[in-house]
Amino acid sequence: MKPGSNYYLGIDVGGSNTGIGVVRPSGELVVSTKISTDVRRGPKQLVSMIGETARRLMDECCAEVRLVGMGTPGPLDTHKGIVLEMPNLGWKNVPLGQMVQEELGITTYLDNDANAAAFGEWWVGAGVGARVLVCFTLGTGVGGGIVIDGSVFRGVKGAAAEFGHMIIQLNGRVCKCGKRGCLEAYASASAIASRARERAEAGDLPALLELAGGEVSRITSEMVSQSALEGDRFAQKIMEETASYLAIGVSNVMNALNPDVVVIGGGVMGAGDMILEPLRRFVRELTFEAIDDSARIVPAKLGREAGVIGAAGIAMMREESLR
Amino acid sequence: MKPGSNYYLGIDVGGSNTGIGVVRPSGELVVSTKISTDVRRGPKQLVSMIGETARRLMDECCAEVRLVGMGTPGPLDTHKGIVLEMPNLGWKNVPLGQMVQEELGITTYLDNDANAAAFGEWWVGAGVGARVLVCFTLGTGVGGGIVIDGSVFRGVKGAAAEFGHMIIQLNGRVCKCGKRGCLEAYASASAIASRARERAEAGDLPALLELAGGEVSRITSEMVSQSALEGDRFAQKIMEETASYLAIGVSNVMNALNPDVVVIGGGVMGAGDMILEPLRRFVRELTFEAIDDSARIVPAKLGREAGVIGAAGIAMMREESLR
Repeated sequence: MKPGSNYYLGIDVGGSNTGIGVVRPSGELVVSTKISTDVRRGPKQLVSMIGETARRLMDECCAEVRLVGMGTPGPLDTHKGIVLEMPNLGWKNVPLGQMVQEELGITTYLDNDANAAAFGEWWVGAGVGARVLVCFTLGTGVGGGIVIDGSVFRGVKGAAAEFGHMIIQLNGRVCKCGKRGCLEAYASASAIASRARERAEAGDLPALLELAGGEVSRITSEMVSQSALEGDRFAQKIMEETASYLAIGVSNVMNALNPDVVVIGGGVMGAGDMILEPLRRFVRELTFEAIDDSARIVPAKLGREAGVIGAAGIAMMREESLR
Repeated sequence: MKPGSNYYLGIDVGGSNTGIGVVRPSGELVVSTKISTDVRRGPKQLVSMIGETARRLMDECCAEVRLVGMGTPGPLDTHKGIVLEMPNLGWKNVPLGQMVQEELGITTYLDNDANAAAFGEWWVGAGVGARVLVCFTLGTGVGGGIVIDGSVFRGVKGAAAEFGHMIIQLNGRVCKCGKRGCLEAYASASAIASRARERAEAGDLPALLELAGGEVSRITSEMVSQSALEGDRFAQKIMEETASYLAIGVSNVMNALNPDVVVIGGGVMGAGDMILEPLRRFVRELTFEAIDDSARIVPAKLGREAGVIGAAGIAMMREESLR
């Protein structure tokens, strides 16, 4: 066996970027890069770009890759490696796993991107050693992942951990999924931006509006977070409200699963303690004491690489379970 | 080995009654009975009555019991067999498992009563063969149970599946636990009765009020159910509302765990299709199609014996896992 023949490739397909990295069996990321996920050019083009980039990375570190793990958003058939639907890209029934496998000539496992991130955090991130880990990823949407005794829990059709579409408010805000009152409609980056825009239109957020160059429509979740960190009271209020909504989702999942680690990741967590501190306080109010006492609520540790590392780790685990 | 030496004893301790039964390894209930759980006389008295009754039952069917399984409400230490808190009985830190074990001279396992009911339904009830089963028990409170691949899922401290205290409404109705907006404050028997009393006071429910002998305070959930079955529109509306609240809880758990079977049991299910039919309809509206398609929502099959049978089954399973 050549040196480096024991590596794994992780791919994290997102709505705007796709991360690709080479991962050691220890979970260490050797090298990684990002390519843009160009929606208009379709899956074939993406797969050939993934192939090109992956080959370059493997050459770079003289790695021979045993297996490829790939995380994608949206509902999947993990057995057949098919992306059933990718709403942000408008794709349907794309056999992405198989296509990458053919492109690279390496066995490829497909999984949900939020599962991959959760697994990565359990494997080498914020939840090492957890028996029951749940992970909330607060990005454009709200993703979820569950890791029980070192395995991703997927439910009977691979669709478990859809925490973003938990209903926290009867007849509440309209969610992108068409329902009302979903957690995602309150605690995602887009929900934070929407709520901030509403307030800015009402004249409540002059500092934030200035950050956005005076245009309400340009306000982003990052700007709210930045404005809050700079001391703007109204922006701080929005972040605290976000934490209070998120706390309902986190508490509901904790009351259902009694985890020892709850990982909160995704872009929104750029706000750090501004979210985390009130979140912990609200969760404590909402959750059974014994359940709250047994869990640590922690920020994700792997950042944007969680998906790449976790996808590689899931591939490694699957290989082991087949031995 | 004598004939009948392979039986299990199941005990289901409830706030007002305690069920005791002898169960075959096949899950068949050989004989069972109920004694009243006399709160004022304390745990010692209850344990000695359990002992007396259990010995009589074992004599009756010439059964020699290998193990005892006991289900109780409230938070437990399942390892040590200690009831940490039994709010309805006002007990704290009672080593009930150990006390029954000493009384009967047979190894006794303690578990949560809702877990026992869920396990019973998975073992020989409405969810035989399920890979991921979740169970909602709608009684005075709302209990929950999760069975994954034939094992009760308890989380890290044995406190998982507290579905009754999932929050379905921000700043909603006050729950007995002190929080606001818990599922239990909307879909339990006591919640149904409370909502009906409010309407009756407003003059909306003459038929129901008549059933209660003209006294609002005497209205029970059973009466609402009976009145609805007899065709009273207002009572039917209350049952349908109950189903809509319950649907949020059921959908949230389905989106989190992607189960193949959802069992709904407990006294409230005396209303049968009056709850079940709108529940299925509302859940379909609230849940991801793939997740809804993969699950059957079914009424419990074992009725009041689920706890007794399931407790015996859990004891049997624990013994097997120790072999």
